[in-house]
This record gives sequence, C-alpha cells and structure tokens, in this order.
Amino acid sequence: MRRLYVFDTTLRDGEQSLGITLNVKEKLEIGHQLVKLGVDVIEAGFPASSPGDMESVRTIAQEMKGVIICGLTRAVVKDIDICAEALRNAEYPRIHTGIGVSPIHMAKKFKLTPDQIVEQAIAAVKYAKKYVSDVEFYAEDAFRSDPTFLVRVIEEVIHAGATVVNIPDTVGYANPWEYGELISFVINNVKHIDKAIVSVHCHNDLGMATANSLAGIKAGASQIEGTINGIGERAGNTSLEEVIMSIYTRHDGYGVESKINTREISATSRLVSRITGVTVPDHKAIVGSNAFMHASGIHQDGVLKDRETYEIIQPETIGIPQNTISLSARSGRHALKYCLEELGYQIEGAQLEDVYQRFLLLADQKKEVFDQDLYVLMGDSGGTADSILLRDMSIATNGVEMATATVTLEIEGEMMTDAACGNGPVNALFNTIDRITKNVATLEDYTLKSVTRSSEALGEATVKLRYEDGRLVLGKGFSTDIIEASAKAYINALEKRTFHK
Amino acid sequence: MRRLYVFDTTLRDGEQSLGITLNVKEKLEIGHQLVKLGVDVIEAGFPASSPGDMESVRTIAQEMKGVIICGLTRAVVKDIDICAEALRNAEYPRIHTGIGVSPIHMAKKFKLTPDQIVEQAIAAVKYAKKYVSDVEFYAEDAFRSDPTFLVRVIEEVIHAGATVVNIPDTVGYANPWEYGELISFVINNVKHIDKAIVSVHCHNDLGMATANSLAGIKAGASQIEGTINGIGERAGNTSLEEVIMSIYTRHDGYGVESKINTREISATSRLVSRITGVTVPDHKAIVGSNAFMHASGIHQDGVLKDRETYEIIQPETIGIPQNTISLSARSGRHALKYCLEELGYQIEGAQLEDVYQRFLLLADQKKEVFDQDLYVLMGDSGGTADSILLRDMSIATNGVEMATATVTLEIEGEMMTDAACGNGPVNALFNTIDRITKNVATLEDYTLKSVTRSSEALGEATVKLRYEDGRLVLGKGFSTDIIEASAKAYINALEKRTFHK
Repeated sequence: MRRLYVFDTTLRDGEQSLGITLNVKEKLEIGHQLVKLGVDVIEAGFPASSPGDMESVRTIAQEMKGVIICGLTRAVVKDIDICAEALRNAEYPRIHTGIGVSPIHMAKKFKLTPDQIVEQAIAAVKYAKKYVSDVEFYAEDAFRSDPTFLVRVIEEVIHAGATVVNIPDTVGYANPWEYGELISFVINNVKHIDKAIVSVHCHNDLGMATANSLAGIKAGASQIEGTINGIGERAGNTSLEEVIMSIYTRHDGYGVESKINTREISATSRLVSRITGVTVPDHKAIVGSNAFMHASGIHQDGVLKDRETYEIIQPETIGIPQNTISLSARSGRHALKYCLEELGYQIEGAQLEDVYQRFLLLADQKKEVFDQDLYVLMGDSGGTADSILLRDMSIATNGVEMATATVTLEIEGEMMTDAACGNGPVNALFNTIDRITKNVATLEDYTLKSVTRSSEALGEATVKLRYEDGRLVLGKGFSTDIIEASAKAYINALEKRTFHK
Repeated sequence: MRRLYVFDTTLRDGEQSLGITLNVKEKLEIGHQLVKLGVDVIEAGFPASSPGDMESVRTIAQEMKGVIICGLTRAVVKDIDICAEALRNAEYPRIHTGIGVSPIHMAKKFKLTPDQIVEQAIAAVKYAKKYVSDVEFYAEDAFRSDPTFLVRVIEEVIHAGATVVNIPDTVGYANPWEYGELISFVINNVKHIDKAIVSVHCHNDLGMATANSLAGIKAGASQIEGTINGIGERAGNTSLEEVIMSIYTRHDGYGVESKINTREISATSRLVSRITGVTVPDHKAIVGSNAFMHASGIHQDGVLKDRETYEIIQPETIGIPQNTISLSARSGRHALKYCLEELGYQIEGAQLEDVYQRFLLLADQKKEVFDQDLYVLMGDSGGTADSILLRDMSIATNGVEMATATVTLEIEGEMMTDAACGNGPVNALFNTIDRITKNVATLEDYTLKSVTRSSEALGEATVKLRYEDGRLVLGKGFSTDIIEASAKAYINALEKRTFHK
C-alpha cells in the first residue's frame, strides 16, 4: 500500500471563494478539527494577499503542531519573504510556490516566454528553499499545458529542490481518463520524479473534480489536495470527503492508504459549514443530510431486507451519530454530557454547566431536544465575546406598510434603548440596531432556517454585513423565536468587527 | 457524430427523493421547460406507486406532445397495466420496466434465482410490448452484477423486444474506468446490441455520477439519464447540465451530439429549484450562482487580461442573462417587457399588465429592481389560485417570551379575523392562520432567504407542511417584509392541498 498524503486547502482555496475572510479564531477552530480528521497538510492561507491573512497564517503556524502548515505564494520574492515570515514558528513549515505553465497563462497572464517561466519557477523554488526544506511547486493550469513542457518544468523544479510537485487542473477542464494520463506521463517522463511527491489538485467546473483526483491517484499521485464540502472558487475544489470515502469504499482499486479517521468526516463537514456559512446541500455525496436516506418505497423495502441492497457506506463510518437517548427538560447533566460525547463534544466543569443551563432554557420551549439542537447549542456557546447583549426587544406592526421595533442593547455595560421603523419587523429591528450601534455596514445577505423538524423548531439566522473596505462579515444567531435569532445574528456580525481589525 | 438521447427523470427519480409529491400543474410546468431545453424523453412518474402519480403521468401524456413520455414499472403485470393506462394518450409512449440483476438484489430483495430473474425480465418486456412498441428495460444494480449474467439478461430482453437497455449504477458504487469498461463489455458481447439503445443511469453516492455517465457515453452508450440540478434519492442522480456542458465544452472527446439547447439550462435549473424547493448550492458546477464568479485577486486579474485564463464556459452559453437595463419605479412597461424577455419570459396583454402593476408595488419599496426580483415576480404570478387571501396582519411582542399576531384572511369571499400567541412573531402568525383555517397539518420545515443583495431585499419564504396521511406540501411566499413572505408561504402550502386531492 502506497501512502496517500491529504492536503487540505479549505482555509486557502476554500476561503478564497467565500467573499468572507475567516478570522484567526475561526481558522484555528477549523484547523484543530482538520488535525482530528487526520490531514497531513493544512494550507492556512496566502500570506502576501493581505496583512490579515498573514496574521492568520502566523497564528496557525504558531499554535498548530504535529501537522505541516503550508502557505501559498506566487513565484516572486516578496510573496516568499512574507510567507516565510508567517511560517517562522511552524513545526513543519511548507512554502507552496508556483507559476502558470499553459500557453494561455504564459502568454496572456504572465506575458513571458516558456524559457522565462522555467527560469522564474527555478528561482522561486531555490529562494523558498533558503527558508524551508519543504517546498511544493504548483504548475498552474498544468492540464492545459503542453505535456512535454510540463515535464521540463517539473524536472527543473525538482532539481532546484521542490519536494512536492502539484499538477493542477486549475480551470476544471479535465475528464478522468485524460487527467490520469497526464499524471502517468509526468511520472514516466520526469527524471528523478521519485525525489518528489506528485500531487493532484482539481476543480469542479464540469462536476468531475472527485473522479479526476481519483484517476490521478490511480495513476500514481501520492498527495490529494481539496477542501471540506468542496467549497472553493467558482464551482469549487475537490471534495476531500468524497475522495476519502471512495478510497475507503473501493480500497482494492487504488492501492493507497491515508491516515484519515473517517469517523471525523461528518463533524468536520458540519463545522466548516457552520463557520463559513456555506450550507451543505441535502443531496451532497457523503455529507448531505439525505445521503443515507432512502425515500422511495422500493428502496425502503430493499434496505429493510438487507442494508447493502442500496447502501454502500454505513453512516457510522463517517461519524453520523446513532443517538438513542431522548433529551427533554427532565434530562440531567449526565444524559446531556453523554449525548454531546456521542456527537464528538468533550466538555465538563464550567462549560458543561453553561451549556446545561442553556439546554434547560431550550428544553422548556421544546418537548424534545434533538441532535441538531445540540449542535446549535454548542455552536452558540463557541461564539465571540459578548460585547453587545440583546436585553429587550419588542415589535409592533400596523398591518399596512411599516413595523416598529424597540430594542434595548447592553454595550460594554451600558444600557441603550431606541426605536426605528422598517419594512417589516426584521427590517425595523435591523434599523434599530444600526441606530443604537451607529453601524454603517450594509446588509448583504440574510437567511433563516429552522434547524429541527417540528413546530417548535429552533431558528438559525445568518447575516452577512459588508463594510466600507469591502470586507464581508458573517454573523449567526439561534433562538426558537426567529426574530430574536435574526437580532442575535446581526449583533454577532457586528461584534466580529473587532476580531477583524 | 453519434446521436445522444437525453432522458430526463427529474419528475420520477428526482421527485422520488423529495418527500414531496409535485402536483400535476407543477410537473407540467417543469415538463414544458424540459421540452424547451430539448430533452428526448421525459420520465413522468411511477404510475403504480400511487393514484396521484398515475393521474400526473396521465395528464402529462395527454398534454405534452413531440417528446417521448415514459413511465416506470416493476417487472410485474399490475404495474405495467397501470403504466400503459396512464400513457394511453401519449404521442410517443415508453414503458420503462426492469428488475434487479446483482447477486444481492436477486437473493435478498427478490429472493429469486438468476434463471427466474431472466424469465421475469423477458415476461415483463413481452407484456409491455403488447401495449407500446417502445420498451426500455432497466437491469437494476447492473454495476454490481456478474457481467456475464448481465450480458445474458440484456440479450434476452432485446430478443423479447426491448428498444432501450439501461445499465444503471443504482447505488453509485462505480468509478469511471470501471463503468466505461462495463458498458464496453455489454456492447461487445451482447448479440444484436445494435437493435437497442444502450443507456447510462448513474447515482452520485461517491460524487462521480457525471464522470461515470461520460465514461459510459465514451464507451458507446447513446442515452444518458439524469435529473436537472442532480436531485434524486440519497446523494442524487447524474446532473444532466453537467454532462451536457462537458460534452459541449469537450465535444471532440465524445463523438456525440444531442438536440439540447444549452441556452435553456440556466432557466431550467432555476425553475426546477423554485418548484421543488431544492436550492441550488452556490458552488454547484454549471448552474451554481458562483460557478462563473472569480473571487480571488489573482483570478480576477487573469480574467480581466483574458477570460479564457480561468473561464472554460461563457455564461451566455447556458443562458445566464446579461442584463444592462436598470429597472426602477420610473421604468415603463416596455423596459419591463424587454428585461423579462432577456430572462426568457414572453408575456404581453393582461399578464404583462398584471406583472407590471406588481412590479410597480415592488419598485416603490426598492430603489432598483434586479433580475432576481423579476424571477420572483414571475414565479409569484405563476402561483396557485388565490382561494385564501391575506388581507391584514399585525404583530405585537412584549419583549419577554411571547408574541401576538392578528390576521385577517379572505377565504372564498368571506373575511375572517382571529388572533393567537406564539413563540415569536412567525410562530404566532402560523398559529393564527391554523386557527382561522382549522389547519391540522404540522410544520415540517421553514426557511427564509433574501433573494437580492441589498438592505431592501425581497424575502423568499419556504414552508413544508406534513399532512396526516404523510404527504408533504411545499409553499412559497415573497415580500419585502419577511413576516408577510412567511404568511404567504404558509397560505400557499394550505391552498395546494386542494390540488393534491
């Protein structure tokens, strides 16, 4: 069995797509979960892209041990300097540098000749090697390159010291048989290819990122790059969970093994969804809520006769909990702790007490508390510092055009009450909060959903605020009253400002 | 160039996954759009599964001409009788019958020997041929079957008169190279295979339905089965739009051509999403809202230099409108009509006037009216008969625990007013509507989102009501006031009851 290295770029290529900059705390939360999942490499950001990203990568490199922390750069000295600085305290630092190698990228984007591209690639790798021993080179748009030229570039960068060579299908143009062929061609023709790990990095523009990555692995690649839930630029990156579970399910066909703990897949998917605000579609392969549900009568009948008639993966394998305890207002701390442990949360002491008190408030409003509610409870507790507290809120509508909201906020100990009108209660509420907090950011997006299936559903509101500098900030709020959930989400987004400054 | 037939099963395998039964009107609306898209076959339902489905297929068969209308059956006489009856008035009827052929399906689900399976398959095809000349046979779970046995079954059903043979990967277990090999094996080994069309039908459990379907087409299959947006059981079916655009983008690699009009893809995707209530994820390949958006600085820079650096499909190809006219309250009917035509809507006369009046109401509330708003306007107008009208609505909250809603509904001409309390305004509102309409269905799901990006966003609410007989009904409502949107969605779901009876 060949060792397959899993390179997660949720925090770089994934985050890049959101229009949202995750703050350091959020990146760390995802990073720690990725370590539990067992990834080998975390690409933490593109340090030269902004001072904020530089700081994020620096903090992650400082705090996360036992895993390779990687930063992206262009093949230019300035980027590499900044990246090396960000990675200075990493236990296992990796610089990921590269340049376009397809005719269109060389001619139109870089306006360089192939010879100049080769020179710049070699120079970048050599320069990065001064800082770190582990240097990955990406041959951008490799799939649309001339394979003979690609072989030349790869050979040169390995000679210059690259330890990993990444052959991306940057625009998602490949199909599996072609991509597999390209990887074979590189492996069979590059001299000293054994001195580097060959890496696959695919995009999903034609819906084939997973299949292409697997074709590349089958052809001999030993590193797979992707993101959790497949988030990423345009149609996204390869969904790591799909590749992992394909190999798990069909391990005889690939001849590789990774150190992934599949039982952390479900928890990782939910965490990334919660923090990024990118919902996982119900029928997403592996991690969608319907992925293991059998709706039609024929299928239900078959599954009852034998699960394997329609089920190729058991839900437990990816850590979907099989909770059998029913929680209600009569449940004690022990039952709550047990159920939370089933869901992968380890809490005790003061944190358990805090969660339990909020659990009781919720249980008073709902007959039964479901797993989904617990996720929300835990998510809520992991929020930002409560610098703004919602103390009171009332709404009146006249049934014609406008609603009036009256809100009391406690901001750093001071009680502030004001009122405003709006086009409906939520708009009135947001206008009132704007007035009290002197907020100038504009509301870019607002969604609300019930997270449990019952008439006493818990509402989860998501708000995106756009600041004058173009920055988007995501806020979340939960309550059985959806208006209160909306207010909390709005306040949560406002609070996060401080983390971004 | 070989002709590729496109078989759409959104209304059968897609609907099957929803837990929602689409009513006849909704199925017809999708059906007509599928014809505009240019599909060759519409699988309209599984008539024997319920009287409602039987009626849907019958109506579609009656009303839709110029396209093959297909109904699914098990390999049993009763199913085929009902299906034939449903298809009686179809211009081009097709019966789609079949049985499991994998060891596990034969032994565990059917409890039959391979010989008995072959017999039942032959009998079903022969029986269906008495009603229609066009009979498609599905070899359920073909991918996990013994290929030699599969060849035997396929040979026999072609001999019995099957005109299309469907080789499904029912549980989504295949990878592209294996699935392509299986299709090659069938084509190379089945006697008289040229008498039937070989069809591919894949599921997305491992995220490879698109790649598998394409591998099958490359290996010689001439019919592709899938759904719009990839909806379907578990992780869904093959996304037709992904397969179509792969072939369009890489046509040299497949040697097939279909009669699909790619410019209808975007409109079809939106329609199916609106009617089924299944949201298209932002980073869905081809039809996601981010599919053509370049977020990162490097990519934006590249695209500005030359679109092809990062763009392999032009948005216009799939019919994403390039609207340049800005609509506001000062816009006239002509401008509105022009913008609607750009989006694919052809309206005039009384319908235009109706839409224009509602446009003006909206434009009064918003500075600018965007394409998204127009879709909502048009979607809203295509609703069910207004047997319940929301006449007045007011809400008061005391800021502690409960909210009170007062609602006036006009039901078949009669004004009815009542009030109720609830856990927040929306809950109070729903409780009040329940009280007035004596509703007994329970709220199963509720979501809300802003459909345009501005502080005066239009809210779109979705409500799912579960009736005592297990039926789920979907309701939608739109308003700049999200509470009003919620009330409208709830009422819309209540109104739809009558369509299901």
